[in-house]
Amino acid sequence: MKRVMLSVAYDGTNYCGWQVQPNEITVQQVLNDALSALTGEEIHTIGASRTDAGVHARGNVAVFDTNARMLGDKYSYALNTRLPEDIRIQGSREVPGTFHPRFTSTIKTYEYNILNRRFPDPTRRLNSYFCYVPLDTERMNQAARYLIGTHDFRSFRASGETNPDRSTVRTIYSAEVSRSDDVLKFRICGNGFLYNMVRILAGTLIEIGRGRVAPDKMPDILAAGDRSSAGPTAPAHGLTLMEIRYPEWEPDFTARRSADCEMPGVTRSAG
Amino acid sequence: MKRVMLSVAYDGTNYCGWQVQPNEITVQQVLNDALSALTGEEIHTIGASRTDAGVHARGNVAVFDTNARMLGDKYSYALNTRLPEDIRIQGSREVPGTFHPRFTSTIKTYEYNILNRRFPDPTRRLNSYFCYVPLDTERMNQAARYLIGTHDFRSFRASGETNPDRSTVRTIYSAEVSRSDDVLKFRICGNGFLYNMVRILAGTLIEIGRGRVAPDKMPDILAAGDRSSAGPTAPAHGLTLMEIRYPEWEPDFTARRSADCEMPGVTRSAG
Repeated sequence: MKRVMLSVAYDGTNYCGWQVQPNEITVQQVLNDALSALTGEEIHTIGASRTDAGVHARGNVAVFDTNARMLGDKYSYALNTRLPEDIRIQGSREVPGTFHPRFTSTIKTYEYNILNRRFPDPTRRLNSYFCYVPLDTERMNQAARYLIGTHDFRSFRASGETNPDRSTVRTIYSAEVSRSDDVLKFRICGNGFLYNMVRILAGTLIEIGRGRVAPDKMPDILAAGDRSSAGPTAPAHGLTLMEIRYPEWEPDFTARRSADCEMPGVTRSAG
Repeated sequence: MKRVMLSVAYDGTNYCGWQVQPNEITVQQVLNDALSALTGEEIHTIGASRTDAGVHARGNVAVFDTNARMLGDKYSYALNTRLPEDIRIQGSREVPGTFHPRFTSTIKTYEYNILNRRFPDPTRRLNSYFCYVPLDTERMNQAARYLIGTHDFRSFRASGETNPDRSTVRTIYSAEVSRSDDVLKFRICGNGFLYNMVRILAGTLIEIGRGRVAPDKMPDILAAGDRSSAGPTAPAHGLTLMEIRYPEWEPDFTARRSADCEMPGVTRSAG
């Protein structure tokens, strides 16, 4: 029996999110089916991030256990010939059987794209949120800087999630808003994110960018500890999970790495 | 009766190209139907560029004649509420009845995107051509520079197109290959393009980028005047018609403008 880790990219447009659900097509279900057909076993993957319907990924992580003889690093090629074109494995390798993708400390990077122009662009409609009101990048970036560090992000948690035992403290290593032509990109990197947190942060930054909220209100919103103090939840299709790294475990595993997102005390090789 | 000009953007994935064809869904057909429903007249648009199946556009141009009272600049909003989300009007205005989008001198800009990485990325599969062989941007850019100027581009014309009366001389104002992370972009701007010319140029540049052909062979390929001297036709889905300008007519019409593509002797206002 061995445990294999996969880096999984997908266009979330046509899926009801990552996690297996009855009567719905999900990324995990399609992956389980492809792996079961490939190995002849009934495979159940464990995902690192249970992304919502419509959210995209360039590097989600999943593991599974198998008795098949195939070498761990061959699964990426073997699976890609069986998967639909909106899911592609970016890499695979064997990992120790004790490795769990959610119970191991991680560095996750998300990007939220906003198409900020007069009319929608059909060629970019599936992975960016269209906003015709002009947004001020500098104001948004100024507000995003307040997110860096260790904070209680309770204000940015979906109101349905109210398990009082779960910590709402997270550490953000970098948070930045940049503009390239008509695309605004909000990139954030941290040790974990609450349910809907990146989308609520994006929605709040949009309110700030259009001038409804002052950039220096961000510390007050954080301090309020109340969902109603933050902005609306931005739509799912603007969000992409860019990468997940396991710094203590597999620092060089994922295909994509970001130089701007170093966890203090962790050294990574160049790449 | 008035003539109205539209700037049209579309994701070409689900269309059999621009031009109306029996029993096929085309962008022009969908646009004609939306305009006919809006005006209550039978509308037949005339397109500037008859893009192939799968090719995208951010700024193709079409005109139509109507007796409807609506002001020319209102059509963009009125049409966008009726069109499917993969077609969006970027602007509209009334033009003189003598204006014809194909028989007026133009500056057209195309971009061809190549995703150059180890595995396909599902989130970018619909508007870039995936190539896993590493491509040398500098070699490609060196070769692209030979295209600038006025040349006979017969070598880069689809072999089916052999009308001997049609000139195959075109003027290219700029041609450049640039890389941003894992995306190579071939951007070309000229006064016109032969059938499949940009895709054959892209296919030839890929051959050069992967080392099969030397960059300084480009002048020889041009001089040969023979389709077989050039590389293969790169796939349609990597190509986007970025903009069409009518410098003598409506220099400020199109929504997108490129500072890198000035036609000699034509002054444009900033924007």
